[in-house]
Amino acid sequence: MENQLLTAGAGETQPEKKHQKSVVVYDCRPGSSAAPPRTFDISNADFTSFLQALVREFSLSNDETFVISTTDRKEIDQELYKELVHGKTLQLMTSVNQELPVATQERIDYLPHYHTLVQCGMYEYYASEGQKALPYAFAELIDNALSATRRNTDIRRIEIRLLFDEAQGGPAVVVMDNGCGMTSKQLNNWAVYRLSKFIRENSTFQSEEAGYVQPDPVPRSLNSDISYFGVGGKQAVFYIGQSVRMISKPASSPDVHEFIMSKDDFERKERNKEDIYSGFIRNRKPGDCSHVDKSEEMFLQSIMREEIGKESFTAVVITGIQQEHINYLKQHFILWTRELAHTYHYYIHGVDGNVKNEMKKTESSSNIDIQISLFERSTRVPRIINLREVDNDMQTLYVRSSANTFEFKATGAKDSLVEGLIRYHPFLYDRETFPVDPYAASAEDEDEELEVLNPEGRGKRPIFECFWNGRLIPYTTVSEFPWCERPKKGGIVPLECYNRISGVLFANDRFQVSTNKLTFMDLELQLRDKDTIFNNGQGQRVNIEKEFTNWLKTCHESFDKQVMFQGYISNVTRTDV
Amino acid sequence: MENQLLTAGAGETQPEKKHQKSVVVYDCRPGSSAAPPRTFDISNADFTSFLQALVREFSLSNDETFVISTTDRKEIDQELYKELVHGKTLQLMTSVNQELPVATQERIDYLPHYHTLVQCGMYEYYASEGQKALPYAFAELIDNALSATRRNTDIRRIEIRLLFDEAQGGPAVVVMDNGCGMTSKQLNNWAVYRLSKFIRENSTFQSEEAGYVQPDPVPRSLNSDISYFGVGGKQAVFYIGQSVRMISKPASSPDVHEFIMSKDDFERKERNKEDIYSGFIRNRKPGDCSHVDKSEEMFLQSIMREEIGKESFTAVVITGIQQEHINYLKQHFILWTRELAHTYHYYIHGVDGNVKNEMKKTESSSNIDIQISLFERSTRVPRIINLREVDNDMQTLYVRSSANTFEFKATGAKDSLVEGLIRYHPFLYDRETFPVDPYAASAEDEDEELEVLNPEGRGKRPIFECFWNGRLIPYTTVSEFPWCERPKKGGIVPLECYNRISGVLFANDRFQVSTNKLTFMDLELQLRDKDTIFNNGQGQRVNIEKEFTNWLKTCHESFDKQVMFQGYISNVTRTDV
Ligand SMILES: Nc1ncnc2c1ncn2[C@@H]1O[C@H](COP(=O)(O)OP(=O)(O)OP(=O)(O)O)[C@@H](O)[C@H]1O
Ligand SMILES: Nc1ncnc2c1ncn2[C@@H]1O[C@H](COP(=O)(O)OP(=O)(O)OP(=O)(O)O)[C@@H](O)[C@H]1O
Ligand SMILES: [Mg+2]
Ligand SMILES: [Mg+2]
Repeated sequence: MENQLLTAGAGETQPEKKHQKSVVVYDCRPGSSAAPPRTFDISNADFTSFLQALVREFSLSNDETFVISTTDRKEIDQELYKELVHGKTLQLMTSVNQELPVATQERIDYLPHYHTLVQCGMYEYYASEGQKALPYAFAELIDNALSATRRNTDIRRIEIRLLFDEAQGGPAVVVMDNGCGMTSKQLNNWAVYRLSKFIRENSTFQSEEAGYVQPDPVPRSLNSDISYFGVGGKQAVFYIGQSVRMISKPASSPDVHEFIMSKDDFERKERNKEDIYSGFIRNRKPGDCSHVDKSEEMFLQSIMREEIGKESFTAVVITGIQQEHINYLKQHFILWTRELAHTYHYYIHGVDGNVKNEMKKTESSSNIDIQISLFERSTRVPRIINLREVDNDMQTLYVRSSANTFEFKATGAKDSLVEGLIRYHPFLYDRETFPVDPYAASAEDEDEELEVLNPEGRGKRPIFECFWNGRLIPYTTVSEFPWCERPKKGGIVPLECYNRISGVLFANDRFQVSTNKLTFMDLELQLRDKDTIFNNGQGQRVNIEKEFTNWLKTCHESFDKQVMFQGYISNVTRTDV
Repeated sequence: MENQLLTAGAGETQPEKKHQKSVVVYDCRPGSSAAPPRTFDISNADFTSFLQALVREFSLSNDETFVISTTDRKEIDQELYKELVHGKTLQLMTSVNQELPVATQERIDYLPHYHTLVQCGMYEYYASEGQKALPYAFAELIDNALSATRRNTDIRRIEIRLLFDEAQGGPAVVVMDNGCGMTSKQLNNWAVYRLSKFIRENSTFQSEEAGYVQPDPVPRSLNSDISYFGVGGKQAVFYIGQSVRMISKPASSPDVHEFIMSKDDFERKERNKEDIYSGFIRNRKPGDCSHVDKSEEMFLQSIMREEIGKESFTAVVITGIQQEHINYLKQHFILWTRELAHTYHYYIHGVDGNVKNEMKKTESSSNIDIQISLFERSTRVPRIINLREVDNDMQTLYVRSSANTFEFKATGAKDSLVEGLIRYHPFLYDRETFPVDPYAASAEDEDEELEVLNPEGRGKRPIFECFWNGRLIPYTTVSEFPWCERPKKGGIVPLECYNRISGVLFANDRFQVSTNKLTFMDLELQLRDKDTIFNNGQGQRVNIEKEFTNWLKTCHESFDKQVMFQGYISNVTRTDV
């Protein structure tokens, strides 16, 4: 009796009913009652026997003419009968154009097309700003790595490797981290589009379920909890390439889990009418690369060899990289790595940012290490940059040229919190020290108006760059607030001082961002709300406009070193040269 | 024998195997060979009999200790055994921490979460521009209606009804058109996220398949073929509300097809562990509203009563409308209808736009009628506007204040085509006639710099608004082209004339737009490409810069009526007043 437990087909637990085919038939003849439809198993029946079964079941009299049609009123004949698919609803009628006496129902399936995944990044990142999209796709993968390493006690290592050496099986992009890794259940969840952390089951067993826990508030909202939609990783991967191999090991298990998702795979499954959203996770011993095609993807073997001895990790291996991306990544290496350094500035350098003072640095320093390396040919030295070394991203320039800082907080409904700071960039002797983007000119070299900004400091640019859970949201800036905007006419502070300030807003995730994390949805709107309270960061409710103006005045008096030509006296001809 | 065709459960063809439960077991004991795994049907087996079956099948000796674990290395005990789900992969091991001698595989499913549909609009339309998102959600539904009515020989009627009368079962938003409607197969396709027209099967039967046919080129690309991604309708619906009832009748059938998709439904299916992406299409006779809850949705009955006698139509009925949307739609009725009139300006008014001359109008007039009506209370007269009546949208203002037009074409790789035109808004006596947006001030009333633009004509604003297949893509503008930009120093035309031009670009769909149709992806980039050829619209390759400059010069000489105060003579005191 117990022998029956073992079923025939070993291995796969595929639906066994592949060949079952039944149809649902409604009696739609005029005057028929609203009787429930009947289901006919037609797996082994030809058209004639199907018709005979109909005659019998619906007690059709011998001389009665009838047609059988689809819900689209296509009459079923010998030919179309063969094409009928399982589950189809049919209508028994006296003629194909007859009115329906009662309603019929047809069961339909409407699984999202696999383009949902494969194309999800394509028309999103790109939108409107073209050029810079690629670093923001990488940012999604760094976000995930930051989340995964947030409980690391030792160094948090995030590595992006661009393996463009074709001799090694490239091109490929690999993003690795030494974070918590994923269990096979979590890896399965990774693959589910739009399954956010808020609605996820993290265990196979309900009895072991643990829901999402909001992290405690930390300064600058640098909580490393940078995921929201259950979309980012997939979107990034399919923007960068056409195939991803997720390799991950959680600390809780000695096994490495591996899962592949690729455009080719989806296409093959569609062709073969297989389940589109089904696949296999491979569980194996660390370092076991016996399943990898030896010749094609040599770089994979070396990555897998590195697995040995690691307690937990994740590697995202992207292949099928678009050629234009490869060109961009090679040609603009400095530019896009700098953009990433900017995006994660406060994760990399800590709450104070990239200050010059080495003493201060060690105190509040960060243990996050983001390294990017570009391998072109095995004979060439790879190009390697640690984002911490970048010292010309805009935030570094702001931090280092600032003479003083004004801090504030804004709190609103539902625990929404923004920490803000304004920096003063003084006028020194003969020039403004408000930093100019050294790359702005090359990026926008057609627009001569942007180049000559420094003489007037900030000019008309917005004051604030905006961060969400500590990372930059690049396309949203906030111009100013009523209390820090340049007044219509002069007050106690010279007007040009208002052009000597830059600022940063650190919003927590009570503020919403768009799915691609490029823009805030309503930061500015919420901040303009009357219920939003600004204070000076010490928790006191103060008149922030007054505090700010006083601060600005002090900055002006203490730091601006204006050399003024008070009046012209005469030319002096030096005789000593 | 034929009696067997009739299967037991009538009506639904649900998977019958609900209670089947089998697991796949790999022998992972050290030294075991890479034998295929075995499948055990455990539907009716308790833990003990499962263990006994294991012992037998893997020939375990009596004194051998073993554990059975998940791929996450959770040891299965009496309790967890009960929670095992069908298809789970298990590992037979000597201890739960033992190394895997060979790899195992687990089948996983990763159906996109239903938030893919329900949230698809939320973080998309909204992004960054907040305020104006709602008209662009409506635009997606108008796009679909334009597509559906494109073969109409008679009038093309598109109606948006805002039914905010709660006494009638509101609030609801209904978008109706008298287009081709959908067969039940097409309605099924409608529901499939990301199933674009390019990859769609439109018939139940392969033998009747007809693929997508690119429409022939028409002036201004006004081809009404405004769909691309298979996303727009769903995105719009779930941005506006939480539930949609699609009601449609194709000309090919006497039946109306109806399908409901709603957030509540998805949530219920998830709770009950039913197939998420399954539902029913209802086929019924036009006017049959016997299935509608009489008390709750009275407006539905009247909509269904209107069905009678229509050859084909589609009605999109959205409910669960967000309160803030209702407020916005009521309060800013003029603003958002005007935005829609702007978006579809050339569909509504024809290729020449909304010219004043009534003679010209009838010639190239359009048969597209887009009407919007707002019902608040049955006692109140509804507010009704036909978009054709709007005469203060920006395109109308441009058309009507222009003295002359310069046309050109740009052709690039892969049949990409842009038709362009530049309009001249002369200086008349004492002022620029370049139109000012009458609503810009109220929208941006904090920014005093934007209000005083007219004195300098266009000012620094971009020249070109951009249309895609004839409809506006609102967030993309093109500043200028090298051949029409204001020269660094004066030439044969006074510099201020360059501030008297506005322009339109009509791109065909070889140019790509973002999924929400708010931005072009690479219009400007492609147009800057060296291979893009500009000519003057007559098909001749001319030196466009020279042609343009000549045109501008002629415009200046013919239309600008400058009253110049050549010199001051004296005050004249009028004694006659
Ligand atoms: N490097 C990683 N290490 C561990 N787990 C990861 C890693 N990358 C992704 N995951 C898991 O996969 C899930 C899905 O990632 P994905 O980036 O697609 O969406 P998300 O991060 O949840 O949300 P968002 O759309 O905001 O990025 C993550 O929530 C996380 O649980
Ligand atoms: N009013 C309508 N009348 C007839 N068919 C319609 C109507 N609205 C939608 N459809 C059908 O449903 C399909 C899906 O519509 P949807 O707007 O979701 O995507 P799409 O128009 O194909 O692409 P896009 O994402 O560009 O809008 C359409 O292609 C069309 O075949
Ligand atoms: Mg993520
Ligand atoms: Mg559409």
